[in-house]
Amino acid sequence: MLVHNPYASNCPTRMILDRVADKWAVLVLGLLIGAPVRFNQLRRAIEGISQKMLSQTLKSLERDGLVSRKAIATVPVTVEYAITPLGQTLAATLDALRIWAETHMEEVTASQQRYDANGMSGL
Amino acid sequence: MLVHNPYASNCPTRMILDRVADKWAVLVLGLLIGAPVRFNQLRRAIEGISQKMLSQTLKSLERDGLVSRKAIATVPVTVEYAITPLGQTLAATLDALRIWAETHMEEVTASQQRYDANGMSGL
Repeated sequence: MLVHNPYASNCPTRMILDRVADKWAVLVLGLLIGAPVRFNQLRRAIEGISQKMLSQTLKSLERDGLVSRKAIATVPVTVEYAITPLGQTLAATLDALRIWAETHMEEVTASQQRYDANGMSGL
Repeated sequence: MLVHNPYASNCPTRMILDRVADKWAVLVLGLLIGAPVRFNQLRRAIEGISQKMLSQTLKSLERDGLVSRKAIATVPVTVEYAITPLGQTLAATLDALRIWAETHMEEVTASQQRYDANGMSGL
């Protein structure tokens, strides 16, 4: 059995960690948890993401097997993205990260203000 | 009460998510969970991280209040990094991400190979 170790630079887990530890991946997967979503809906829901960055994020997530892409034969064609079963196994973990950021926002910003005021940690 | 929403581009949670959803932050905090670690020990433990990237990561984590820095009066001075109580609240979540990458590495790499062979998702 191979030992997987993201602390080793040549281990595939390092590359996978780099991909999933990404704010855009966190935000996209968070939106797909409930139901499939169309590209333009995603773009509107994630303020500040460019069309190019959203395309790249979705393409990487699809390549990683975390998201599936489905073209629907409307005129014009509609493209819908859904989370895969593998993506679901990741979604809860990523969601915990999003919730952590929401929960501890005041503590982090207070620390940043102390650091910037003192030139050192306020702890 | 403010509503925190990382989907809004101007919400501080977006910036915090960007900071903590980062492979280097995941790997550094993972090493600090048990006990304080010196800079050079961290650098040796995380293959492929440059001195500059490790310095930047530690400085950001310190500014965010997740890591504390302690200079020890040896000759030459030794600098030790420790996880803070706030960092501990994040560490379990980040560790889950690292463990997810280790656990699902084969599935992700198999999907990538199918995608690259077919020019489309293998799902």
